[in-house]
Amino acid sequence: MASIAEERRAPSFPIRELTYWLDGGRSITEQKERVMLELERDPLWRVSDHPNLTLAETRERAMSKVRRLADLATSRPQEETLLRMSIISVVDPGFWTRFGVHFGLFFGALQGQGTPSQLAYWMSKGALTMQGITGCFGMTELGHGSNVAGLETTATFDPETDEFDVHSPTLTSTKWWIGGAAHTATHCTVYAQLIVGGKRYGTKTFVVQLRDTKTFELMPGVNIGDLGKKMGRDQIDNGWIRFTHVRIPRSHMLMKHTKVLRSGKVVEPPLAQLAYGALIQGRVSMVSDSANVAKRALTIATRYASVRRQFGDGTPGAPERKLLDYPIHQHRLLPLMAQTFAMTFAAREMTANYHQLMKQLGAVDGAQGADASDAIKNLKETHATSAGLKAFCTWMCLNIIDQCRQSLGGHGYSAYTGLAQAYADFTVHCTWEGDNTILMLQCGRYLVATALEARNGQPLPDNLAYLKGALAAGAAPRATGDVGALDTLQAAWSSVAANAILSAVRAFEAGLAKGLSKDNAYEFSSAARLHAARMHTYTYLLHRFAAQVAQSPAALRPVLARLAQLFGAHSAVQHSGEFLQSGFYTGEQIEALKAFVNSACAEVRADAVPLTDAFGYTDYVVNSPLGRYDGNVYEKYFELVTSLNPQKPVPYFDSLIRPLLERTNESDDGPELEFDQE
Amino acid sequence: MASIAEERRAPSFPIRELTYWLDGGRSITEQKERVMLELERDPLWRVSDHPNLTLAETRERAMSKVRRLADLATSRPQEETLLRMSIISVVDPGFWTRFGVHFGLFFGALQGQGTPSQLAYWMSKGALTMQGITGCFGMTELGHGSNVAGLETTATFDPETDEFDVHSPTLTSTKWWIGGAAHTATHCTVYAQLIVGGKRYGTKTFVVQLRDTKTFELMPGVNIGDLGKKMGRDQIDNGWIRFTHVRIPRSHMLMKHTKVLRSGKVVEPPLAQLAYGALIQGRVSMVSDSANVAKRALTIATRYASVRRQFGDGTPGAPERKLLDYPIHQHRLLPLMAQTFAMTFAAREMTANYHQLMKQLGAVDGAQGADASDAIKNLKETHATSAGLKAFCTWMCLNIIDQCRQSLGGHGYSAYTGLAQAYADFTVHCTWEGDNTILMLQCGRYLVATALEARNGQPLPDNLAYLKGALAAGAAPRATGDVGALDTLQAAWSSVAANAILSAVRAFEAGLAKGLSKDNAYEFSSAARLHAARMHTYTYLLHRFAAQVAQSPAALRPVLARLAQLFGAHSAVQHSGEFLQSGFYTGEQIEALKAFVNSACAEVRADAVPLTDAFGYTDYVVNSPLGRYDGNVYEKYFELVTSLNPQKPVPYFDSLIRPLLERTNESDDGPELEFDQE
Repeated sequence: MASIAEERRAPSFPIRELTYWLDGGRSITEQKERVMLELERDPLWRVSDHPNLTLAETRERAMSKVRRLADLATSRPQEETLLRMSIISVVDPGFWTRFGVHFGLFFGALQGQGTPSQLAYWMSKGALTMQGITGCFGMTELGHGSNVAGLETTATFDPETDEFDVHSPTLTSTKWWIGGAAHTATHCTVYAQLIVGGKRYGTKTFVVQLRDTKTFELMPGVNIGDLGKKMGRDQIDNGWIRFTHVRIPRSHMLMKHTKVLRSGKVVEPPLAQLAYGALIQGRVSMVSDSANVAKRALTIATRYASVRRQFGDGTPGAPERKLLDYPIHQHRLLPLMAQTFAMTFAAREMTANYHQLMKQLGAVDGAQGADASDAIKNLKETHATSAGLKAFCTWMCLNIIDQCRQSLGGHGYSAYTGLAQAYADFTVHCTWEGDNTILMLQCGRYLVATALEARNGQPLPDNLAYLKGALAAGAAPRATGDVGALDTLQAAWSSVAANAILSAVRAFEAGLAKGLSKDNAYEFSSAARLHAARMHTYTYLLHRFAAQVAQSPAALRPVLARLAQLFGAHSAVQHSGEFLQSGFYTGEQIEALKAFVNSACAEVRADAVPLTDAFGYTDYVVNSPLGRYDGNVYEKYFELVTSLNPQKPVPYFDSLIRPLLERTNESDDGPELEFDQE
Repeated sequence: MASIAEERRAPSFPIRELTYWLDGGRSITEQKERVMLELERDPLWRVSDHPNLTLAETRERAMSKVRRLADLATSRPQEETLLRMSIISVVDPGFWTRFGVHFGLFFGALQGQGTPSQLAYWMSKGALTMQGITGCFGMTELGHGSNVAGLETTATFDPETDEFDVHSPTLTSTKWWIGGAAHTATHCTVYAQLIVGGKRYGTKTFVVQLRDTKTFELMPGVNIGDLGKKMGRDQIDNGWIRFTHVRIPRSHMLMKHTKVLRSGKVVEPPLAQLAYGALIQGRVSMVSDSANVAKRALTIATRYASVRRQFGDGTPGAPERKLLDYPIHQHRLLPLMAQTFAMTFAAREMTANYHQLMKQLGAVDGAQGADASDAIKNLKETHATSAGLKAFCTWMCLNIIDQCRQSLGGHGYSAYTGLAQAYADFTVHCTWEGDNTILMLQCGRYLVATALEARNGQPLPDNLAYLKGALAAGAAPRATGDVGALDTLQAAWSSVAANAILSAVRAFEAGLAKGLSKDNAYEFSSAARLHAARMHTYTYLLHRFAAQVAQSPAALRPVLARLAQLFGAHSAVQHSGEFLQSGFYTGEQIEALKAFVNSACAEVRADAVPLTDAFGYTDYVVNSPLGRYDGNVYEKYFELVTSLNPQKPVPYFDSLIRPLLERTNESDDGPELEFDQE
């Protein structure tokens, strides 16, 4: 414990002030602290025993928390609910999903795709408060995930009865992965092919009742099963659903965008793209979640590294050396710390952009003209940026969790030190709400298209302003002065990202030149597009980070600037080929950059534990004996393991072990087989 | 199913012949097939239901298999047992550990560190066959893992009674992670500080009885607890052990190397290093395991990608496109395929080297002179190479598992598709028997030391022959001719590895020049050393791969050569900075290499499914409906999930869901609070 106390003796910055800055202000920090305390004090929210629960117990415990949260969510201000959910997402991510499926996905679909009167109708039935209705979200199928347009479930309009017939025609059309379907939901927003008069109108959304709300019996024609055990997030009861000609009234199709009239006439919306705004929210929240989960992982790994000692420098009798004092350990953790700050600032900015966009979209909803075209342009940009960031940050966070876990040595493999489960819970973020690879390609496609438009004289959006110089095709920029200075690094990344985008453009054009269709030319350029999206996202993160440094209070600026430099320089060394190829850095400058990374690590190391303190998570949220604030790791780890696993006689000693130990080889005992005696 | 059948129509190579070549000969393939069939037919070895077992059931099931295997292991030829274990390590890795702790670690310690008469004694007590003794291996402690010399447990010689007093003096000295301790073991090989006459002689090994073999009661002074849930491998019952002045006879210290005589005289061995030969075996087997587990992961991901269809090229009515037909998907999987072949060949060569080394060490055991110095040189080299390979290949395989799992989309998150658990089970390979980072640094230290010796005129070992040119400091080599040719790639990697080693040498010397001690100068150069070890290991893998291509049958040579090129070229593109910095490739050549990787992927894609067939795993071993040979993935996946998760009423509907749905807000119901009426 003295080991960690000495780490806090002389931080280079005011810890509390950094917490406020990261949270977005003192009042938010204080609200966050109230929520953390409230959760910690509620016995329902005990999480330290999660590893010892069975699947059945895990799900039941999660359900017992739903009511508590439903009451809070509907009685407290929305910002408080969002804050509470963002903390729950770190402490108890499986529960977050159990709850989020109803409020975020099911209710979100009603809100985003229902008309005002439809929304009012479902709210009157209790869809917001779960008083009468619990919902799930029926999009993916056994054979279809990313390609929503390819879903096979059908909703066929029957003009005779003014109903839709919802049907699963094939095995692969079985709704699959539907969170809440196995145990929880009475209703489902089902994505299905709208068919009217024999014609297909694409995938629309329909509210289908799954279970009787009084008896919980399955409705006629509805078949549901349990998907059972998953890699993580077992708190949520994912299921499969098959529909056999289930009839629903026409009014249960959500008609904010496309409408089906009594006559069977289909009215399509003027601005189909507006329906996609809703997708962005999930992605933005996953960028925040990446930052938040990474903070927890680094708190555990960094604090443990300040307590754990291993080997010495050969001085007899001296205590072993702290892990954190090894340059190689600094190299393992501190660039990840810098990445975590980068993600935090990007998440904040994306969230603000998203709210602004929603306001803008709300204003033009249903309208047209200049305002709408601005809004759609903004939507396209936010859609692409959020796609790239979601993919990039969830992968980055996943890597941070696993690196932090491995840095704990053997103790990282215990279920009681917190990061094994964190990995299993988090990794699904890389797949759901857009598979990361596909999102990166979408982002890359936007980058190529925007570069092409800019070449034709269209103005560049702010985040791509760096393309301007490259498009003008002047002399390629070169590093001048200090290779690790923040502005040098920004220029370096801008030039590399611009090159990557232009190289993707060239690949796309080479595809067209081969006579490929536009779609196939994009396919042909996919490796280059993915690369462009990655380089662009690094650059975006670094620019946002630098902007935050510039705006930060003077007392925080030095440490934040150092972290921003470490982020930019470490990432550049990891991709040194790009910088050498573009000629921005020479080989000698890359060597200087490596030396800069070493010295930046050593510098950040002095603040490492105070930086974890500034993340502001209580021991309850950190939920790992190795990441305790007081550094009393071994005693508390021992206590936790022994209290959750009390000594008991070996249950199968008599049935299995004794017979093993006491067995004799029968072949040695019996008489020889005799034959041919006659 | 037609989708996968068409993949097998025209392989470019004879599949069966490749299987023989990978396995090391037809007879081994056939033996392997017998073992796979035998396991598949044994109901004890059912593995498809593992995800649904509780921790207690998992452990009990594992114990029930121990006897079956103990009888087989002691009655069948050793090669067959090793082959069986290598398959079990893929199918049922947690059980492999449960069993391996006794045979590999406990019995291995008796064999490697006991005198012949000690070994005979313990064998007579049943230590080989588990007839009377089940063993565990007590090395790591709560506060000590990698630094074996720093272990705190003490074994103090008492000359009065001719006994050792084995004691855990502190909380951190608690033996921790001891596999088999919680439920299984009667005896333990305990690593403890030998203290004689008040003097410490370092860490030695002592056999301590933990439990009464008839009653399974703990022996006096022995305290054991259960470490409970882990990230993976729950089949093995890891525990903690504390000793409170436990007395054992002097003869229970394993004295093959250091001896304590009746008088208390300590006799140290002439060649202490020989004791470390045993460490190598575990590492070599983990290289094999990396290759074998990667084969399974790729079988699943590749076959699924040949069946799963997603999006189209816009042609109306056309079926969706196979994942495997997307260039980006080829990019995700096929370089991993090439890595898997590289690991397979490296594993084979390391295994052969290891057996040769053991023969050599056996011959000099106890002797000295020229033979011993040769053997020790060989030991040092094999030790370093195996350390680097273990670290590198376990990380590589871990990445392959996760990339393959992510490539399955949402279905990768199911516990029934095989790769979620594979990751959790496999990742401990990166930590145990030498934390990967520390092993890489050890390998790097050997590389620096060898380069320094070579500069002083010592001959270079074969695997480092490539340093010769770099040490001679002639002109740096440059690519000539075809950038992706196998010999060009070998030259490229050799030059980059040589540069990395020399750069680590310079960092080490810079440390010395600053006045640091030798150990601290090595610490100072750790980032460069780690990098050198990584570059060296890539180079080693590529050279071994090329050697195997050259020796392979003519019919296999084209496909193997293409895979070797893909391995070398893809890795080079991933590290393009190194090649640009060394000047081996120009920027244009790197672009050409990228284009080569694309075309190599497209070429290997045509053979992708046949290559998984050549891995030769039966559907039982693949153990994933998505990786089935016949491609009938959806039907079998649905069958598996539904059979393991039959429909049942929701267990907590009445207690939790009904009250949620039917609740009313109390505040709306009661009368208004009235006051101040007077």
